[in-house]
Amino acid sequence: MGAVSWSHVDWRASVGLVGTVVKYLSGVLLVPLAVGLYYGADAPTFAAAFAITVAIGVALERVDPDPDLGAREGFLMVALTWLLVAIVGTIPYLLAGFLGTESTLAQPTNALFESMSGFTTTGATVMGDISLDRHSHAIMLWRQLTQWLGGMGIVVLAVAILPELSVGGAQLMDAEAPGPGIQKLTPRIAETARVLWLAYLGFTLLEMLLLYGLHLGGLAPNMDLFNAVSHPLTTMPTGGFSPEARSIEAFSAAVQWVIIPFMIAAGTNFALFWHVLNGEPERLFRDTEFRSYAGVIGVLTAVIAGLLFTGIGISANPSAVPPIVGALEDSVRHAAFQIVSIVTTTGYASMDFNTWGAPAKYLLLFAMFVGGSAGSTGGAIKIVRWVVIVKSLRRELFTTVHPEAVSPVRLGGRVIDERALRGIYAFTLLYLVFFFVATMLVVADAWRVGYQVTAFESMSAVAATLGNVGPGFGVVGPMNSYLGFPATSKLLLTFLMWIGRLEILPVLVLLTPAYWRT
Amino acid sequence: MGAVSWSHVDWRASVGLVGTVVKYLSGVLLVPLAVGLYYGADAPTFAAAFAITVAIGVALERVDPDPDLGAREGFLMVALTWLLVAIVGTIPYLLAGFLGTESTLAQPTNALFESMSGFTTTGATVMGDISLDRHSHAIMLWRQLTQWLGGMGIVVLAVAILPELSVGGAQLMDAEAPGPGIQKLTPRIAETARVLWLAYLGFTLLEMLLLYGLHLGGLAPNMDLFNAVSHPLTTMPTGGFSPEARSIEAFSAAVQWVIIPFMIAAGTNFALFWHVLNGEPERLFRDTEFRSYAGVIGVLTAVIAGLLFTGIGISANPSAVPPIVGALEDSVRHAAFQIVSIVTTTGYASMDFNTWGAPAKYLLLFAMFVGGSAGSTGGAIKIVRWVVIVKSLRRELFTTVHPEAVSPVRLGGRVIDERALRGIYAFTLLYLVFFFVATMLVVADAWRVGYQVTAFESMSAVAATLGNVGPGFGVVGPMNSYLGFPATSKLLLTFLMWIGRLEILPVLVLLTPAYWRT
Ligand SMILES: [K+]
Ligand SMILES: [K+]
Repeated sequence: MGAVSWSHVDWRASVGLVGTVVKYLSGVLLVPLAVGLYYGADAPTFAAAFAITVAIGVALERVDPDPDLGAREGFLMVALTWLLVAIVGTIPYLLAGFLGTESTLAQPTNALFESMSGFTTTGATVMGDISLDRHSHAIMLWRQLTQWLGGMGIVVLAVAILPELSVGGAQLMDAEAPGPGIQKLTPRIAETARVLWLAYLGFTLLEMLLLYGLHLGGLAPNMDLFNAVSHPLTTMPTGGFSPEARSIEAFSAAVQWVIIPFMIAAGTNFALFWHVLNGEPERLFRDTEFRSYAGVIGVLTAVIAGLLFTGIGISANPSAVPPIVGALEDSVRHAAFQIVSIVTTTGYASMDFNTWGAPAKYLLLFAMFVGGSAGSTGGAIKIVRWVVIVKSLRRELFTTVHPEAVSPVRLGGRVIDERALRGIYAFTLLYLVFFFVATMLVVADAWRVGYQVTAFESMSAVAATLGNVGPGFGVVGPMNSYLGFPATSKLLLTFLMWIGRLEILPVLVLLTPAYWRT
Repeated sequence: MGAVSWSHVDWRASVGLVGTVVKYLSGVLLVPLAVGLYYGADAPTFAAAFAITVAIGVALERVDPDPDLGAREGFLMVALTWLLVAIVGTIPYLLAGFLGTESTLAQPTNALFESMSGFTTTGATVMGDISLDRHSHAIMLWRQLTQWLGGMGIVVLAVAILPELSVGGAQLMDAEAPGPGIQKLTPRIAETARVLWLAYLGFTLLEMLLLYGLHLGGLAPNMDLFNAVSHPLTTMPTGGFSPEARSIEAFSAAVQWVIIPFMIAAGTNFALFWHVLNGEPERLFRDTEFRSYAGVIGVLTAVIAGLLFTGIGISANPSAVPPIVGALEDSVRHAAFQIVSIVTTTGYASMDFNTWGAPAKYLLLFAMFVGGSAGSTGGAIKIVRWVVIVKSLRRELFTTVHPEAVSPVRLGGRVIDERALRGIYAFTLLYLVFFFVATMLVVADAWRVGYQVTAFESMSAVAATLGNVGPGFGVVGPMNSYLGFPATSKLLLTFLMWIGRLEILPVLVLLTPAYWRT
């Protein structure tokens, strides 16, 4: 981040660096270009998109050819990166519509929604007609790639940039790891990022191999090469986009079982993998956040599996859902898949959980607020914050009885700084306030245009975008889309994906006068 | 509270003191007894209830004839008082059913719900057939009296007991009042309470005079003596019970205008009236909480009035509601009445706000979380906590940009202790978590028995009981009742009224091992 300089906000430096990011991004467009050439569809789209993106990247870089970033510029750069990259990411969608294929994504608001949903790894979609018959392989792959790239960005954001800016739950990881802190893993941020990217890349490739291996072994008839490449691109970033309209329901039980552990890995603090690779796998199970994460997944899976197995969690119309009641493997698999998918904020579905009964659905809505681990690609409030809050509430009760007691909150054997604790409370409350207010705005907007949406559906839409989960319930269910919302609501939800992904504060800070004052 | 003693929990002392409270309570039963004799209905009910209550009070007092209360026993006594008083308060409802009048309140779960709703000044009802044709004047007056007594208890709780136990937003009032703090108003708690009770009593009598004066002046035809006495008994405690099935809609516009300022007074920190009586009314408008309170009411009223006046906030069926659209006085009056009623957590209604459109309804649901002032009889989260949270969030943003800055949060010119700040965050988050979890349980329970209730209705039922507001939306709307819920849900909602009224912590503390350990 360079030397800390508080003299003034050098917005040119931030824009210049975003230009560099956009320039690198343009290189990735060559992949769908190649796929477009191979399948004979949308190659001109990506050739043109490549040219335009390069031009934009170079132009932005010129704003400041030699950027020197202070801490204050860091906030602006982070916020601008996701915003401008999402805007640039719309180019293929818009061009594909312009050059021939009729698509809901040819409309700018929709294109921005889908692009932001990609780069923030949310997975909420306004592609109303997900199908390789309607869209080219190149466009579909680009959609998957936006999430994979977004995930790489989040890894850097979560483990390198946010802690540097002293925001996010990430600074807690330092207190957590009993050995060398995240900052000390490697001396320089670039190297830290490289190590974690290797883990990210390694998991992605391993999942591709396993999925395609299942196909070759006859256990996954429709998991062809395109699907086996596409899905891992959205598993590791906890993204959730799929070229299949019915998500992972389209594939065999074997495929669903293989994807579950990869989603779990994607929601785990990536820094822990560094210890595992160093031959200290026990570090994983000594980590408080990982244990809580595993515990939450285990308990919620058991409850949902019980509901599904006994039929208590199934709606009045059992013929509408696959046979689960009384089928142990089915119940456990669907429960584990959905819970892992929601808690990690991936957003895949192995079945349409809209068909579930109210108790099971409310549990899923509740799970949308849990979130993945700090230092993972998962979104929402994040496990470590909940762990700290529960510990702090216990302390509060204890000191109510023993007002004279001094009782610090500990995590992994270390005392949590009271200032960090306050930051966690502030974030969590801010998150819930945003949730309430945004739900009200979505309801009012839907009411304005006469769009039929229930309170529960609106809440789930807001929770799923702010928490970067993706699908919600009812009209925004896993087999449906956000297409029906008015454009104003779509822009609001796009905004929520953006600030949710950046953990709110780096964006809010930009709105304070103190930020811009010299 | 006597000398602080932490040696062990002397539960006998707590029970003994509750016995004294019950003994005093029995005296109040003589009022409906007299009314029963006058109207010739339910006099035997209250004669028997009086005898039983005296016996219970005396028996409980015998548990510890000379109670010496330490701070730890204070928690137990507070929790037990509201629980046991609510249980004793069911006696008239049960006896009335036993001795003849058919009533939903003859069923024990319902009786407990109604009694707890009374003494916690919630105002949620399971009396399915509110009417003086169906119930005696004596029973109806008892229902009103439970709220008036509950309000007296809350005044003591809020300004004398909770600050002594270092819980509740009340300790902030100290920092707030620039002159003598609440503790210093009068040297002894009993005297503090007496001063505030005088204000409580004075407002009650003044409202009775004004309402009956309107009646005598021909401006309120149906505001007869019984109504003119009954309603002030539930205004000052922000209770909301009414002997009229359609609440304040049953009365003229003049009555509605008169009740509004009394609700506002009921939601104001009672300690401020002490200053007003001492000839320093400007103290009221210098108080940060009062200004925020007035501001919130003003802004929300203006928004709702705008929605009602333009017709944006009215449902598709305008014939179902009184003529508001385009009628300025009607729009302003109904907006002000409903907003003041919900923000102060009174729960009266001047019209059925279920007929409003989604935006206006969501605003009301939102307002249920605001709450009255600390040191008032209002419930929910309370204004002062929100003020402190907003200030603290601003500080959080400022210190994100200026990590080196030391920036305490101030209220009314004084620095708020970081520990008090943490307590406020903890309470607010706990409140929201209880809200979410309880909503899930209500939905699951309703689903179990096939009771049709939407997510929005369930949320409003939980927010209205936990926040001691009273009515919610749909099935629990202001002209409906909580009768349809399964008994398990009613018990849960009764529990929510109880812990909500006691500001959660004094009850939760009892569940910690540290509380009972020597
Ligand atoms: K996602
Ligand atoms: K009330």
